[in-house]
Amino acid sequence: MPVFTKEEYQQRVKKTQEAMQEKGIDLLVVSQPANMNYLTGYDGWSFYVHQCVLVSLKQEEPMWIGRGMDANGARITTFLSADNIREYADNYVQSTVRHPMNFVADVIREKGWDRGSIGVEMDQFYFTHRAYVELEKDLPNAQFKDGNVLVNWVRVIKSDSEIEMMKRAGLTAVKVMDAAIEHINVGARECDAAAEIVYAQYKGAGEYAGDYPAIVPLMMAGEATKTPHLTWSEKVYQKDEAVLLELTGAYKHYHAPIARTIFLGQEPPQLMKDTAEVVMDGLKKTLEFIKPGVTAEEVEAKWREAISHSTIVKESRLGYSIGVNYPPDWGEQTISLRPGDKTVLQKNMALHLIPGIWYEDVGFEVDGTIYLTENGNESFYEYPLKLFTK
Amino acid sequence: MPVFTKEEYQQRVKKTQEAMQEKGIDLLVVSQPANMNYLTGYDGWSFYVHQCVLVSLKQEEPMWIGRGMDANGARITTFLSADNIREYADNYVQSTVRHPMNFVADVIREKGWDRGSIGVEMDQFYFTHRAYVELEKDLPNAQFKDGNVLVNWVRVIKSDSEIEMMKRAGLTAVKVMDAAIEHINVGARECDAAAEIVYAQYKGAGEYAGDYPAIVPLMMAGEATKTPHLTWSEKVYQKDEAVLLELTGAYKHYHAPIARTIFLGQEPPQLMKDTAEVVMDGLKKTLEFIKPGVTAEEVEAKWREAISHSTIVKESRLGYSIGVNYPPDWGEQTISLRPGDKTVLQKNMALHLIPGIWYEDVGFEVDGTIYLTENGNESFYEYPLKLFTK
Repeated sequence: MPVFTKEEYQQRVKKTQEAMQEKGIDLLVVSQPANMNYLTGYDGWSFYVHQCVLVSLKQEEPMWIGRGMDANGARITTFLSADNIREYADNYVQSTVRHPMNFVADVIREKGWDRGSIGVEMDQFYFTHRAYVELEKDLPNAQFKDGNVLVNWVRVIKSDSEIEMMKRAGLTAVKVMDAAIEHINVGARECDAAAEIVYAQYKGAGEYAGDYPAIVPLMMAGEATKTPHLTWSEKVYQKDEAVLLELTGAYKHYHAPIARTIFLGQEPPQLMKDTAEVVMDGLKKTLEFIKPGVTAEEVEAKWREAISHSTIVKESRLGYSIGVNYPPDWGEQTISLRPGDKTVLQKNMALHLIPGIWYEDVGFEVDGTIYLTENGNESFYEYPLKLFTK
Repeated sequence: MPVFTKEEYQQRVKKTQEAMQEKGIDLLVVSQPANMNYLTGYDGWSFYVHQCVLVSLKQEEPMWIGRGMDANGARITTFLSADNIREYADNYVQSTVRHPMNFVADVIREKGWDRGSIGVEMDQFYFTHRAYVELEKDLPNAQFKDGNVLVNWVRVIKSDSEIEMMKRAGLTAVKVMDAAIEHINVGARECDAAAEIVYAQYKGAGEYAGDYPAIVPLMMAGEATKTPHLTWSEKVYQKDEAVLLELTGAYKHYHAPIARTIFLGQEPPQLMKDTAEVVMDGLKKTLEFIKPGVTAEEVEAKWREAISHSTIVKESRLGYSIGVNYPPDWGEQTISLRPGDKTVLQKNMALHLIPGIWYEDVGFEVDGTIYLTENGNESFYEYPLKLFTK
């Protein structure tokens, strides 16, 4: 029932244990849902309560700890043996007198893992300040260390099977953007277009079911094009309105994001046309540059150079690493394509380049979603790189 | 552009300030997306980076602080004046050398709010341990207090306008369950049914656009019926398989959840039929009991009494308070219908009663989604209370 072979999960755990050793961490408490999934296969919408996977240097197999009602879900979706699935009672949930981390601490003590250093994901959502306070209080013999993004960095180089999952997500991405371009029309309501887009996202492509993406369709129209991250309403699309689309296909929680811009008219404003041309040309040149051996900041510098003849300023990062993820973000929180990030790019890393530009009255978004090959890079899908007009 | 009147937001802020005064909190750092929305109207899928709303006793209007690219979104969706929208530069995002909370601390000092007690939402996702550490380090003159669920409790009694939003969500909930019952059939793929369900969720009902729900469709079939919180795959529905559905309608982020069970055959197992009968009868009796003045634990006791003639044991809580929310949870984290919760129910509170039962081979889910009226309670929608067979 887990998506990958037991051997693949075991290898991931081994790499995680090696990274822990390097950082002097004996036990890692993993709360981030994508990290939990990556290490064990666990898949359930249960991350609104506290849960975690424990990785110890003293035990080959990780341990899942979660709410009682979700233990069967762990039995179905993970490769873990029965003894490594532990459940806390329901009266721990959102209680004012006990906390799920008290139960986690009990298990850690029972296993004799409470002496030595314990890593926690200090800046990941799903690991709250209170979670830390409770663990620290209950485990006085432990020394706490920051294990933030430790597993994220293990995830950064994908296996061939993971790349295959992302290609399947790419098949859906194409259908999703097709649906958007077909259904966004002057006079149509935003919510009706959103329904068509999400329909394509969940249905998937051919034999590959779609999955819920880590970010819902972002579709900014009219006034909203001066900002990213807005969604939809009853509003009706107007003539000569631009629509920025930041969408994705997803397969087994692996993502292939796709972003394009539509102008609902035959004559986009000159500023939009000029911006589109510069950005698309810059993106193409940047994509041609990406291959194993170059660094993240060199990629961004290439982009900056490619658009230097224009007046475009893009202060935000150009892109980031992608792979498996859960809401609220499909970004991996590892590589950022921006000055200062000296990560050397390697084969089977996967990147989302999203040079979104938001002026006061005009915005433009387009993207590249790629993985690195032996000598260069390949896109997860084929889709026309242009400003769509209709 | 905000959903409610400026006066309504101001009243919510005032109530929050009163609750802060009671708890001896001078400044509250609000990170939970639904709380940010409730206090200011802010609405954007930007909660994958650090952001917050500050509520000070020294200033009538709250202040939004977020990532630069989201400031226009705040200008569009909130009632806040320009000076109360502050943006941090993009190089704070997922940086190894600076943290968005350093910027928040700068603003707090600039405003002179750094002396006195600062409340933070210690056990809310979206406020990490690191966020706390950075604030504490940068604000040595402040005394930190737990402001967890403070705003959630202000939210617990809905305004009439909020009840209206939930009724609109209820209109969508009916269409969503209709879509599920129509499209879940022997031989159909789970993902195709999921696509139809989410289509109905986003499209909404009549003039009211649907919104993305805080929880995706949960639809457990076959083996998965022994657990909640699983989603869908390419799997094809089988004859004599049960399907548990936990769905919702949403409007402007207000929810009206709806749960039902379908059996794909004419003869459900006797255990399922018996369970369904006991649960539905127990739910009806419990709903008849709910009115202003009774406590949360009395409601649960009523349910327990109503099913006491059966062998059903439900260890988890019977239900919880609902209203406005963002992923990952539509639960409000205030009232829990379980022993020990002595909250006295009042007019315009809204509850989701979800007596889900998961045995080893058989599960059954159904729900009641209601708000309290002067003398009793009303459902947000009308939908047959039965075990669906087809």
